[in-house]
Amino acid sequence: MRTEELGEFALIARLTAGLPTRADVALGVGDDAALLDLSGFAADALLVATCDAQVEGEHFTLGVATPEEIGHKALAVNLSDLAAMGAEPLWALVSLLLPRALEVATLDGVYAGLRSLAARYSVALVGGNVSATAGPLAIDVTALGRVPRGQALTRAGGSPGDLVLVTGTLGAAAAGVLLQGGDSRLDAVSAAARAQARTALVSPQPRLAEGRALAASGVVTAMLDVSDGLAADLGHLCAASQVSAELDADAISVDPAALAVAEALGRDALRMALEGGEDYELAFTVGPDAVEQALEAVTAVGGGARVIGRLTEPGLGLRLLYADGSIEELAARGWDHLRPN
Amino acid sequence: MRTEELGEFALIARLTAGLPTRADVALGVGDDAALLDLSGFAADALLVATCDAQVEGEHFTLGVATPEEIGHKALAVNLSDLAAMGAEPLWALVSLLLPRALEVATLDGVYAGLRSLAARYSVALVGGNVSATAGPLAIDVTALGRVPRGQALTRAGGSPGDLVLVTGTLGAAAAGVLLQGGDSRLDAVSAAARAQARTALVSPQPRLAEGRALAASGVVTAMLDVSDGLAADLGHLCAASQVSAELDADAISVDPAALAVAEALGRDALRMALEGGEDYELAFTVGPDAVEQALEAVTAVGGGARVIGRLTEPGLGLRLLYADGSIEELAARGWDHLRPN
Repeated sequence: MRTEELGEFALIARLTAGLPTRADVALGVGDDAALLDLSGFAADALLVATCDAQVEGEHFTLGVATPEEIGHKALAVNLSDLAAMGAEPLWALVSLLLPRALEVATLDGVYAGLRSLAARYSVALVGGNVSATAGPLAIDVTALGRVPRGQALTRAGGSPGDLVLVTGTLGAAAAGVLLQGGDSRLDAVSAAARAQARTALVSPQPRLAEGRALAASGVVTAMLDVSDGLAADLGHLCAASQVSAELDADAISVDPAALAVAEALGRDALRMALEGGEDYELAFTVGPDAVEQALEAVTAVGGGARVIGRLTEPGLGLRLLYADGSIEELAARGWDHLRPN
Repeated sequence: MRTEELGEFALIARLTAGLPTRADVALGVGDDAALLDLSGFAADALLVATCDAQVEGEHFTLGVATPEEIGHKALAVNLSDLAAMGAEPLWALVSLLLPRALEVATLDGVYAGLRSLAARYSVALVGGNVSATAGPLAIDVTALGRVPRGQALTRAGGSPGDLVLVTGTLGAAAAGVLLQGGDSRLDAVSAAARAQARTALVSPQPRLAEGRALAASGVVTAMLDVSDGLAADLGHLCAASQVSAELDADAISVDPAALAVAEALGRDALRMALEGGEDYELAFTVGPDAVEQALEAVTAVGGGARVIGRLTEPGLGLRLLYADGSIEELAARGWDHLRPN
């Protein structure tokens, strides 16, 4: 059945039946707006709000990603933004732009993915909107969370001398994009590497536990998530903190899947880690005396992170230091959502 | 210049320069998420959240509405949802889906309209997102506000015997749609009526002062905004309140512009008022002893409202009573955003 056959109100009833909720949702979907109870907020808590859209043909391709993965990612990228502030996620609103010919079963899958991730992090889906469109399917999510005032982490706050760390590994999502290209040389890539790259691209896991732990540690000076690519995102952090940065080429944790794909295609894996977006890891900075404390905070919640460089005086840009002593000036290149890539 | 030529980051910088803010915005646009200070919230305040999208070809037509009007309406329909809860608006996030060939000047206009309405109601634009799309321009807004817990008004809460009231007049937006059709018989419609119908359609004013005043009055039992059409929206209110309703045909305040357009086309103006969506007036219910108090609350803020009917026992549906004693069973017809209309 297509969405236009089902109609708006039956579709909303179908999508919102039994949505995950929370005790602090005074009124969820079905009225003009949601009512959210703040009585569980500590006196010094800040509300954290972000929105991000996933658009067919731009961020995902139906038939490549499953509907469940598309729904998962639409929420995950928003939860990643909350993680980057050190926030705990609470509520989300979902706005759908629906081609009239879209199969309702596809939408059921998208919502299954949304619900599953929401339930995992106790996020209540409290509102939304459906609209028809003559264009591609789009899923626009607004996520709301909270963070103690003194713990909120922004892109500003880094100082020269601070060390730069990043959680997890980088480049796997870029490898996933290349694998979709279907170059026959990629047949040499192992099934495990393929699976890892695909998962990174279509089903990223927001680093919520790491983000909260780092914020609570009190030693992080600046943080953001790596969505546009490490180089571009560090460029944002440097701009906000009014500093420069240098990265140690050998220290950057390139994902094994990126290494495998790069080898098969004769590409530079380090470049994929630096410039391929959508890793959804957290990049953050700490004073040199606080590295152990930050690493302990991350490992205590089951994560991992490593030092990849340091902040320097402003005016030096973003530089990549090689083991042989050579230095490369990195342009802050990465994903621009409006330019053809 | 087209948006793809300007690029994502220059575009964001251009759109967000000097955005209206508020003292309670701890961190606005430019980081992973906004940080919002709740210290101005009373202990019993609820957070109110809603989202609604405007899509080219579905909700507006470039060249018919100006970019400023499109931006205005994208925020106005969300503020209308906050008004319907009795809430005070505080913050909004704006997610844009942009065709790559869209002129930046058009987007400047959209943002001018958004900014102007935001400034009028002291709403801070605290976040957003831009994404490219191969489809039509879409503007998806999430609006956040607050309401004292005991004052929040929902669609539930109406009881048999309560009177049904509506602010302002109905049908002008439907007249605006018909005027866009360009039927030559419409040449007989006065310039004043045309202007009124056009304004109602492309530049609706959210009834925020009325909504707050009604919520604060303490006598309103249920409320919602008339966006899908009076009959459809009262159907929603009746369903949520588990009641039926009857309307007095003579009491419904049909907008003069709707009367003029209906006369020119030989249509039924009452039908336009009942079924034409997008009026963005508030429909609400009060006990029979509290009508004066509710009307005083509305007039005290410069608005107007009138009694158009009453709630009845469940199971009777929505009925229209004519002065001659005849009764029409009204289907809860109105706007379905997915079905071709």
